[in-house]
Amino acid sequence: MYYFLGPKSEQRAFLEDVLSLVVNDHVYWRRNFHPKDPPTLSFPDLKKAEADQFRETFYQELFSLISDLKLDVPFFSPRYMAHIISEPSLPGLVAYMATMFYNPNNVSYEASTVTIQYELEVGQQLAALFGFDSERSFGHLTSGGTVANYESLWFHKAAKFLPVAMRFAYEAHSLTVPDDLSGDYWELMNVLPQQLEALWESFAQQMMLLEHQPVEEMRKHSPTGMGERAFWEKVSSVWGRCTHEPVVLLPKTAHYSWQRAAGVFGIGQQRFLSVPVDRRFRMCPEGYQQMLERCRSEQIPVLETVSVVGTTEFGSLDNLVDLVAVRDASAKQGLVSPIHVDAAFGGYFATMFQEGEQPLDPSLQALLDQPHMKEGEKVFSAIRHCDSVTVDPHKMGYAPYGAGAFVLRDGFLRHFVSQSASYCFDQRTGEDGAHLGQYILEGSKPGAAAAAVWFSHRMIPLNTDGYGKLMLGLCAQATQFYQLINKVNERLEDAPFCFVPVNAPSINVVGLLVLDKAASTVSGNNALNTFLIQRFGVRDVESIQQYDYLVSHTSLSVNSAFASEHAQIAKLTQDSEGLDVLRFVFMNPWTEKEAQNGATYQADFLERLIEECYRFLQKPPS
Amino acid sequence: MYYFLGPKSEQRAFLEDVLSLVVNDHVYWRRNFHPKDPPTLSFPDLKKAEADQFRETFYQELFSLISDLKLDVPFFSPRYMAHIISEPSLPGLVAYMATMFYNPNNVSYEASTVTIQYELEVGQQLAALFGFDSERSFGHLTSGGTVANYESLWFHKAAKFLPVAMRFAYEAHSLTVPDDLSGDYWELMNVLPQQLEALWESFAQQMMLLEHQPVEEMRKHSPTGMGERAFWEKVSSVWGRCTHEPVVLLPKTAHYSWQRAAGVFGIGQQRFLSVPVDRRFRMCPEGYQQMLERCRSEQIPVLETVSVVGTTEFGSLDNLVDLVAVRDASAKQGLVSPIHVDAAFGGYFATMFQEGEQPLDPSLQALLDQPHMKEGEKVFSAIRHCDSVTVDPHKMGYAPYGAGAFVLRDGFLRHFVSQSASYCFDQRTGEDGAHLGQYILEGSKPGAAAAAVWFSHRMIPLNTDGYGKLMLGLCAQATQFYQLINKVNERLEDAPFCFVPVNAPSINVVGLLVLDKAASTVSGNNALNTFLIQRFGVRDVESIQQYDYLVSHTSLSVNSAFASEHAQIAKLTQDSEGLDVLRFVFMNPWTEKEAQNGATYQADFLERLIEECYRFLQKPPS
Repeated sequence: MYYFLGPKSEQRAFLEDVLSLVVNDHVYWRRNFHPKDPPTLSFPDLKKAEADQFRETFYQELFSLISDLKLDVPFFSPRYMAHIISEPSLPGLVAYMATMFYNPNNVSYEASTVTIQYELEVGQQLAALFGFDSERSFGHLTSGGTVANYESLWFHKAAKFLPVAMRFAYEAHSLTVPDDLSGDYWELMNVLPQQLEALWESFAQQMMLLEHQPVEEMRKHSPTGMGERAFWEKVSSVWGRCTHEPVVLLPKTAHYSWQRAAGVFGIGQQRFLSVPVDRRFRMCPEGYQQMLERCRSEQIPVLETVSVVGTTEFGSLDNLVDLVAVRDASAKQGLVSPIHVDAAFGGYFATMFQEGEQPLDPSLQALLDQPHMKEGEKVFSAIRHCDSVTVDPHKMGYAPYGAGAFVLRDGFLRHFVSQSASYCFDQRTGEDGAHLGQYILEGSKPGAAAAAVWFSHRMIPLNTDGYGKLMLGLCAQATQFYQLINKVNERLEDAPFCFVPVNAPSINVVGLLVLDKAASTVSGNNALNTFLIQRFGVRDVESIQQYDYLVSHTSLSVNSAFASEHAQIAKLTQDSEGLDVLRFVFMNPWTEKEAQNGATYQADFLERLIEECYRFLQKPPS
Repeated sequence: MYYFLGPKSEQRAFLEDVLSLVVNDHVYWRRNFHPKDPPTLSFPDLKKAEADQFRETFYQELFSLISDLKLDVPFFSPRYMAHIISEPSLPGLVAYMATMFYNPNNVSYEASTVTIQYELEVGQQLAALFGFDSERSFGHLTSGGTVANYESLWFHKAAKFLPVAMRFAYEAHSLTVPDDLSGDYWELMNVLPQQLEALWESFAQQMMLLEHQPVEEMRKHSPTGMGERAFWEKVSSVWGRCTHEPVVLLPKTAHYSWQRAAGVFGIGQQRFLSVPVDRRFRMCPEGYQQMLERCRSEQIPVLETVSVVGTTEFGSLDNLVDLVAVRDASAKQGLVSPIHVDAAFGGYFATMFQEGEQPLDPSLQALLDQPHMKEGEKVFSAIRHCDSVTVDPHKMGYAPYGAGAFVLRDGFLRHFVSQSASYCFDQRTGEDGAHLGQYILEGSKPGAAAAAVWFSHRMIPLNTDGYGKLMLGLCAQATQFYQLINKVNERLEDAPFCFVPVNAPSINVVGLLVLDKAASTVSGNNALNTFLIQRFGVRDVESIQQYDYLVSHTSLSVNSAFASEHAQIAKLTQDSEGLDVLRFVFMNPWTEKEAQNGATYQADFLERLIEECYRFLQKPPS
């Protein structure tokens, strides 16, 4: 695992050499642009008192900055098993730094001749990873997964209302409405994406014959142009007030930013409907089917279904195979819903199932053959049947922040959000470089982030030679930790507490509830776990030496399937809504190595955890 | 100007030393965390064939990356006078790099113990710069100005609908509606921000007595909770369908991202109303007054007014003094509009009017005393009467991308967008660090960007000792260039073309139309300017040595006050909507220095421009 600087900065010499190369190369690039132009700062200038003062202040302030930073959390260490955060990879770090000297802005070709192409290439690589046709899709980077999720609503909303808007536009121009757009509101809100393109092209042709700009004409009759209220009043006047505005379906495990998106996009939080999750925290296909059934019978359109591949809490993978089947069956009955896959966290795990050129280590190969990994493989290969994906290179891609990504299977949908006058659709997205800014929510964007992701993908292939191997290693560590918990638990028979792992890891996350055997209430049990959370959490420290291990935590609903189906937990009096649990994310490839006392970090941690449990319960082990 | 590496990398040695210090310091930080834990990569590991192969590939790929980057645009050079982009400052660059090694994520304290505090400090510094009470305001960083502008709509929308939502909530709980909320729709949509807080507190108290969470209860009855359609149907049922949904007022010069925001937030592009601009491209206070008057007489509420301080095209500064006066007069008559100042570009120019400790260079002092600078000073000091500001540290703050910022004068408004259960308002924002993610649109955010801005503000004070001096120098260069154009123009009396500066610079931008004296149509004149735009624009080159000067361009509406009031332009037959014009942004403090031929870059460029005009018109100078 040479991808990282390492917990002891093992690759220090290499990093220094590479950075020195990057700086020197850039320096000579500048010097060679019109080399005979005189310098703006001469040697005498650089010796002036003012220059000395600048440097003196710089060093002083810099020392202050880097001394502050020393109180930052040691994400690089195998002793950190807390959040989805790590040290960035060397390729990501070095490419980001190299590009920063050039300072490109990936909003248009004029401000970024090189890195905007990188960004579109990365978009195509991710599209291919998820099984989309990379020539037809549109993928690009965002500042993070939250913005990518917003974009899913933005694109799918534009597409969802397109038929109604075209219908209104035809009528406004007193043109014959084509048969396919002559249906009622329900039919227009349930046009398949693959039909949209032809409908649009014929609309565009007619508008152009009338010398109108088609996107503008369409937009005049869409919520985007009219505003929500005027649009809905028009719908009411045409089809009656009983028509329903669309909803968004998503599992209870969806990230909190989706609730925020509901407000931002005017859809309303009450129209974001939660689908139940099973005891493995995966959206229930049955629940989804019932929800779709209800929507269909009440004629409530679905703007999009959000499925989570890699939940923030425990890394659960929604059962996309079944969800897609449910969605497709529903479409046959007239309810069409795009599926957006929120794989901000989980996306890079798809690389585990892309075979590289090198043979895999036998233990990793064996892991791949286990049933839960086979199950995961099916999930990832079902993404191709979905409509868009969020994936964060700054999470499992180990790129520096902020690098999220959004991939849209039907790239032509991007034109419906654009402010431009473009109406001739070119299926290839490669030529969009000059105009990327038209199709995205953000304005300025660091070209350095694009270079970091692009270079990471060059150095760490998106298959089992690269990321796949790395991800498999993390899954192996999580599985190992899970097994270790179970093994250690056997020793705790007579202890006043025991360990309840919350999930068998699907990827690299393990949840752990410590049960206080004497506690009869949820809050009573929380007391122990809260103590442990504080003991092993980020806190105000005077030096990071005060940390031995760092873990994270989450709250598990007492109404979750997991809690209510667990005999011991179900017995607790529910005097609180949530059970505090410990949460371990394995981002660091080294937790199975040995710490200074010879035990592995995982084993050593569990010993300390046991000690702390005894300490809290004030009953030393006999 | 020691803030930059310099066009010839003059400060190379200093940069290398500083970076080496940063890397080493970080390396030893890692090593000293549990120093006795063994290394994960041993020396023998680092000598394995696999390690060699990794490094070999790394160098090869890195050489490829940095050779690609050499085709990037030379933003660092005084020969680049095109867009609002430059080399980043050394403080910004170095602090960003130093912090990247630590990889903090500024979404919560747990992922960023240090840089989230920096971010909130920067928010307070910017609030103070604009004359807000930094204890009461809420400022933070975004990925860029576009997201900051979205946030203005998000916060002001939540605040605008707050009285209606509280009224509905009171009624839903069968509580007496307080007198201040008993008015009709129009009155509720025109509550002054300073009255909101007391109304909210009394609402929150009553909800808590009923053991309800106030923000949740309020939201249930707001567009955020209900969705736009249901909300408006409720409004219609209570106050009749003739009630109007709010509009947004903004000048024609506003950035294109505002149109996008209109769609995203469900307000509708047709409800974003353009206020005319004067011949200096500033929003007309008279036009604004008429627009407000119309809104008031038709009882159309105003969600917010967007004023631009530093337009993208020519750096115009809206006359905020008069706009605020118009807004305040309107408020007295019952129409209340927050003003959001889009100072993404112009914000840092406020530092020119903050006196530092050092005496200013006499030429800069003289510039400050000129009437147009006095006018600018009034604009910036009127920001204190506005409600929120967008400012981009990655523009005139010379921070690396992406660093925008949003500053909200009444910080307590942030609670109305939060997903949290917080209801006890603490006026101080300093304690929000742990929860910053709740009050912002984005999820993950680079702590490195916060450190870069924070460190830049330490090294380059926000007054005439630092940024102020830098900005004044740029204004001086733009003024000098403007004067030079006029002077050169005197020589062109017998030439087949002449120069028409589009604006006397308010800040650091100059627009230039070259008039082809023989052209009788707009398109005919555009032919010459398009040629010049291509000649001096970013294009496909094999080496950047093919660039001598780089300038940008924009399109000037033939209907603009400037065009129609200009005798020669007005004579042109309007066979095209826009006049192509050259645009110069002075970001680089060195354009008045001498190029290799002894002329200043500015003068040298103008000579080449003249040559190219003759070449295009095929009439060599006599």
